[in-house]
Amino acid sequence: MEKDTILVLSGGLDSTTMLYEYRERIALALSFHYGSNHNDKELAFARLHCERLGIRHIVIPLDFIGRYFRSSLLAGAEAVPDGDYAEDNMRSTVVPFRNGIMLSVAAGMAENEGLQYVMMANHSGDHTVYPDCRPEFVEAMSKAAETGTWNRVQLLTPYTLLNKADIARRGKALGIDYSETWSCYKGGEHHCGTCGTCRERREALAEAGINDTTVYDLPVRTSGLK
Amino acid sequence: MEKDTILVLSGGLDSTTMLYEYRERIALALSFHYGSNHNDKELAFARLHCERLGIRHIVIPLDFIGRYFRSSLLAGAEAVPDGDYAEDNMRSTVVPFRNGIMLSVAAGMAENEGLQYVMMANHSGDHTVYPDCRPEFVEAMSKAAETGTWNRVQLLTPYTLLNKADIARRGKALGIDYSETWSCYKGGEHHCGTCGTCRERREALAEAGINDTTVYDLPVRTSGLK
Repeated sequence: MEKDTILVLSGGLDSTTMLYEYRERIALALSFHYGSNHNDKELAFARLHCERLGIRHIVIPLDFIGRYFRSSLLAGAEAVPDGDYAEDNMRSTVVPFRNGIMLSVAAGMAENEGLQYVMMANHSGDHTVYPDCRPEFVEAMSKAAETGTWNRVQLLTPYTLLNKADIARRGKALGIDYSETWSCYKGGEHHCGTCGTCRERREALAEAGINDTTVYDLPVRTSGLK
Repeated sequence: MEKDTILVLSGGLDSTTMLYEYRERIALALSFHYGSNHNDKELAFARLHCERLGIRHIVIPLDFIGRYFRSSLLAGAEAVPDGDYAEDNMRSTVVPFRNGIMLSVAAGMAENEGLQYVMMANHSGDHTVYPDCRPEFVEAMSKAAETGTWNRVQLLTPYTLLNKADIARRGKALGIDYSETWSCYKGGEHHCGTCGTCRERREALAEAGINDTTVYDLPVRTSGLK
C-alpha cells in the first residue's frame, strides 16, 4: 500500500490504535508538545510505538499554547476535575481550537512532503466535550486543507462514528498492549484512575473485554464509576 | 466600538493598512515568527505600529516551519526569484498552508480571549499564487473556526476583493507612511526593488499616486516593470 498519510499521534488509546491499524499507509506520525500536564507521558509512548513499527515520528513544539492559553489541562494535576467524562465536568480541559491548530500544521507538513491525507483519531465520545472533534468541524477543516494546498490535502477520520470501546476492540484484535498508552490528564507517575479520562479509559477497556494491566493510583473501580 | 477582533499582522503594506483602518475594533494583533528571510524586518514594523496605536501585540514563534518546510522564502535571499509577481515565478515562495496555520492559532487565541473575529488582509492579487489566500479557502477556514470553537469564532477578510493599489489608496487616506512597512522577500538591509514582492509594492504605490519614499537597492523603476 502507498504511504500517503500523516497521522496526528498523541500516544493515547485512540491514536495509538489508529497507528497500528493504518501502519501500512502512514508515512509520518506527528505529535505535539504543547505543555499539557500529561504531554511527556503520552509522547514517550508515541515515540515507543513509532520506533517499534519503523514509522518516522516528529514532535512539533507549540510553546505558545502553554504560555497564552487557559485550560485545566495546562494548569497542573490539581486543576483537572475528578468524576465522569461529561460535558460540564470536562469542559475546563478544553484547549482552545487545539485540533484546528494541530491539523493545520499537519496539513502544511503533508503539502510539504507531497502526502495526500492527514488522519486523526477523534471519536463519537469526544463530540460533546470538544467542539473541534465534531463531524461539522472535521468536514470544514478538510475543505480548508483541500482548498488551501496545491496538493489538495484531505482529512481522514475513520473513528469518528466509533466509541472508545469499539476502538479498544480493534486494538485488542491488533494485539496492542494498552498499558503502553497514556490517557490520564493529571500526568502523574501512574494513571490516577479517577479523572474523567481515566474513567473513560477503564470503562472502554472493560467493555472491550480487555484485561487492563495499567497501573492506577486508585486501583479498584469504584461504584461511582458509571 | 467594541474591541472584538484579532488581526493577523505581518508588518507589510496590506495588514498594516488593515491595522489602521480597523484599529477601533482590534483587541490584539498577532504576528508570527516562522523563520522567513524577511521576518525580522517586517516584525519590527508590526511592533512599531502597534505601539503607536496602543494595540496589544503578540509574536508567536513557529520554529517548526523554518526547520521542516521547504520554501525559497525560508532559504536565504539568493533563493528568492527576481521578476514579476506571477504564478510561475512566485510559486517557490509559497510556505505550505501558512495562512491555515496562522489563522488556526489566531482562532484558538480568539476563543481563549473571548473575542469573536479573526481578520486577515489577503487580497485579490494573492489568489493565483497562494492557494491559502483564495475565497474558497477563507470560507472553509471560517466554517472550521466557527464549528470548532464554543465562541463560534469567524474570519473576516474585508480586502479579499481589492487589489494592492486599492489597499494603498485606503492607506493614503489614513495617512500611513508606507516606508514604515516591509515587503521585500529577500530581507536585506533595504528593499531590493527587483523581487516579485518589491515590484508589486512599487507598482501599487505608484498606481495609488503615493510618493514612494522606501529605500530600494535598485532605485529606478526599470522598463521591465509591468
